[in-house]
Amino acid sequence: MREKLDELKKRFALVDDLGRAAAVLSWDQQTYMPPRGASARAEQLATLEKLAHEHFIADENGALLNDLAEYAAQLPYDSDDAGMIRVTKREYAKAKRVPPALVEEMARAAALAFEAWHNARAESNFKLFQPYLAKNVELRIQLADHLGYSDRIYDALLDQYEPEMTTAQVEAIFTPLRKEIVALVQQIARKADAVDAAVLHREYDEQKQWDFGVEVIKRIGFDFARGRQDKAPHPFTTGFGLDDVRITTRVAKNFLPTMLFGTIHETGHALYDMGYRAELERTPLGGAASLGVHESQSRMWENVVGRSRGFWQFWFPRLREIFPAQLADQNVESFYRAINKVAPSLIRVEADEVTYGLHIMLRFEIENALVERKLRAADVPDAWNAKIKEYLGVVPPNDAQGCLQDVHWSYGDLGYFATYLLGSMFAAQLYDKVVRDLPALPEQIARGEYGELLNWLRANIHTHGRKFTLDELARRVTGEPLHARSYVAYLKKKFGEIYGV
Amino acid sequence: MREKLDELKKRFALVDDLGRAAAVLSWDQQTYMPPRGASARAEQLATLEKLAHEHFIADENGALLNDLAEYAAQLPYDSDDAGMIRVTKREYAKAKRVPPALVEEMARAAALAFEAWHNARAESNFKLFQPYLAKNVELRIQLADHLGYSDRIYDALLDQYEPEMTTAQVEAIFTPLRKEIVALVQQIARKADAVDAAVLHREYDEQKQWDFGVEVIKRIGFDFARGRQDKAPHPFTTGFGLDDVRITTRVAKNFLPTMLFGTIHETGHALYDMGYRAELERTPLGGAASLGVHESQSRMWENVVGRSRGFWQFWFPRLREIFPAQLADQNVESFYRAINKVAPSLIRVEADEVTYGLHIMLRFEIENALVERKLRAADVPDAWNAKIKEYLGVVPPNDAQGCLQDVHWSYGDLGYFATYLLGSMFAAQLYDKVVRDLPALPEQIARGEYGELLNWLRANIHTHGRKFTLDELARRVTGEPLHARSYVAYLKKKFGEIYGV
Repeated sequence: MREKLDELKKRFALVDDLGRAAAVLSWDQQTYMPPRGASARAEQLATLEKLAHEHFIADENGALLNDLAEYAAQLPYDSDDAGMIRVTKREYAKAKRVPPALVEEMARAAALAFEAWHNARAESNFKLFQPYLAKNVELRIQLADHLGYSDRIYDALLDQYEPEMTTAQVEAIFTPLRKEIVALVQQIARKADAVDAAVLHREYDEQKQWDFGVEVIKRIGFDFARGRQDKAPHPFTTGFGLDDVRITTRVAKNFLPTMLFGTIHETGHALYDMGYRAELERTPLGGAASLGVHESQSRMWENVVGRSRGFWQFWFPRLREIFPAQLADQNVESFYRAINKVAPSLIRVEADEVTYGLHIMLRFEIENALVERKLRAADVPDAWNAKIKEYLGVVPPNDAQGCLQDVHWSYGDLGYFATYLLGSMFAAQLYDKVVRDLPALPEQIARGEYGELLNWLRANIHTHGRKFTLDELARRVTGEPLHARSYVAYLKKKFGEIYGV
Repeated sequence: MREKLDELKKRFALVDDLGRAAAVLSWDQQTYMPPRGASARAEQLATLEKLAHEHFIADENGALLNDLAEYAAQLPYDSDDAGMIRVTKREYAKAKRVPPALVEEMARAAALAFEAWHNARAESNFKLFQPYLAKNVELRIQLADHLGYSDRIYDALLDQYEPEMTTAQVEAIFTPLRKEIVALVQQIARKADAVDAAVLHREYDEQKQWDFGVEVIKRIGFDFARGRQDKAPHPFTTGFGLDDVRITTRVAKNFLPTMLFGTIHETGHALYDMGYRAELERTPLGGAASLGVHESQSRMWENVVGRSRGFWQFWFPRLREIFPAQLADQNVESFYRAINKVAPSLIRVEADEVTYGLHIMLRFEIENALVERKLRAADVPDAWNAKIKEYLGVVPPNDAQGCLQDVHWSYGDLGYFATYLLGSMFAAQLYDKVVRDLPALPEQIARGEYGELLNWLRANIHTHGRKFTLDELARRVTGEPLHARSYVAYLKKKFGEIYGV
């Protein structure tokens, strides 16, 4: 059986290599590729995705997995081998249902749609993107039909990013959560003037911002011997192996949080991608449990840590050294309040923590409507504008600041957005446990010390790679399934204090 | 037959995609990859090379090529289809002889050796690189044995880079050429003080150098919508498609030619890679005829054009605008003489045009000795130092400036170096024809106009892609096989005039 397992590992190492190679091509496309390179790149990505898929669903793999089923049943559930066989079997069963031609077509369509989205956003012209979005939606409907689902078509798509989570489960959490958030937003709205964030819109030299960001993430634990940071129009993290994890960011001269919290956010992702055990490298477990778990890491560092008072007790003096004129009239407290100003706004990635969830819910609803054929691609701008007005009371002046703002749909990543909010919730739930385990943590953070937190995350989350689902991790680590209580309590306490509500 | 040809094209498009994907990974490794990323990258490259090779040598391809043989025989020799079948058949026959496991092993060894070479060169410690070099040599001996050869083992390796050229042919050209060069070097040595190149060693701001280089290559015709330039420790050009061609360069604060002529050199390569007809994209003809032909393009732009008096009549005033203090005591003539100073030196890529050939000959001889097992990897530094002393009268103070200076052997690219000198020769031979066809060219160059030259190269060389061998191109375009007469005449005339010899 060891031989069969070794054979399985060898076969999946090749699949892993192809996936990582595609990740390099995609990273390059989003960072350095010259404009005219897009069409050849689309072919290359399609070929890599197709080959990876073909090698993944090879009948030999199915036979090996069958042969190993009995062996796996005798192994402890938590062991690497059991996990590897379990996760591979789950993913194999799904992948087997998808025709390689569809995989190839999705990859090619996505590469072309990314370029179209990029131009459409630059010109704020949704029409340029519309046919590509329609195509991506159509292909995802086909995909869901192949994957199968028992309740909602969206289940099949969500499951790609958040294994074993259902649309109904998400709605059961989102619906009451929405009431809580809307109530909090309304309370805060009555005291909108209590926080002044004008300081964030002063002029900050871009290179100095970049350098400060690098200083922060190095201290947090980003290892530049094992990764790098580049600029990209839509920031993301990608890994080409345990020891080559890339983050990207963007820098806005007149809005400090864009780079600052973007960089910390991606570092949270990167630490996760750098954190599984080396034995899992080039195996199906060498990665993240799910996007929700991934996002719990980025959100924890970005928000729970990065937007905390303690964090800025350490970093504000340093930031003021770098920008003495811009921050002359500020102190830790005023800066802390500024970076936590709550205000309904148009751009998701720049939204405050309180309104953020509403940005996600509107996307989750639009995606559901698209794949249930209740909404056409052509009608997305109107639907978007109506919903954001309803939830947040704001209306985008153009589509670049509306439905064209996110990159995800250009890749056809429908089913993805919900994981952002699940991640925020899970971050809060985990952090409740962290501070019980590490009572000295708040003081450490105020001293700029993050080692114990990182070690805790490594030991409880990162080390496992893809072995457990979000639900399994939640139960193992916190003793409960995923819930929104910690998240709601966190928002109410933090913003209640800031706004006096 | 059209259907079979289409099937063949489709199959080779996939091989092309895999090769281009590997090129992206390799480019990234040499430009942006963090240090620790090397081992995962080695696996990924090995997998891509292995799959490309497997798909290339698939029996179905052989059957299609057999079926198409009769059809091809009826087509005009010069037609795309005949060329595609002919070239594919030639390369297929070679590739078929090489076991996929060896291809994979060569790729993995090369990726690891590159990293070792990088460190060895940085520390000037040959021992760090020696086992990797020995491994690469051993694998190339195995490769040559699989490929087969009738005369010399080196033939099999040379043929990879310069199809249908033999070691004996190269020696037949190099041996008399060496006498000519040595005689010229000796004549010039007696007048060594006639040219003062101190100006090149003044301090030149690196960013300003970079910007000037970009200005020059844009005017020459490098299209930044279809390519980009980055920094790399060992400059190279690579193409990920007709519309995504990347060049790299390095910048030395105290030696102007490093960036300047490096950038123009790589641009010569890039224009070739950007110049085949779009119909050849993703086919076996979408590329360069050979490395010798490739080098004829880079050398023509770098040397014949870029180091000519006329070129600097246009560019010197601009360069002096950018560096007024450094160039205050210079004029076109003094600068032209400085950039053409002949002096025996250690570093090939910084060698003058006259001594350059001797750098190549010593490498060609060492490579031959290595694969004929007349020289061990461990003895390379001694052999190198002895030869460079014999040919050029200089002795490297360390291996970084000796046998560790070039990247090629880290990739296992044995058989490659000869093509540099073949390229220089072919550049001179082509240029003789160019100025017969375009008598106004010298005046155009003095006005900074390169369009007619580029169009001539496009029409006579670039457009054909890989359809013809160097020998075929030489006969078609110049009416003669490759020879060294134009090259020798060019060197004697240019440097005879500069040195009065």
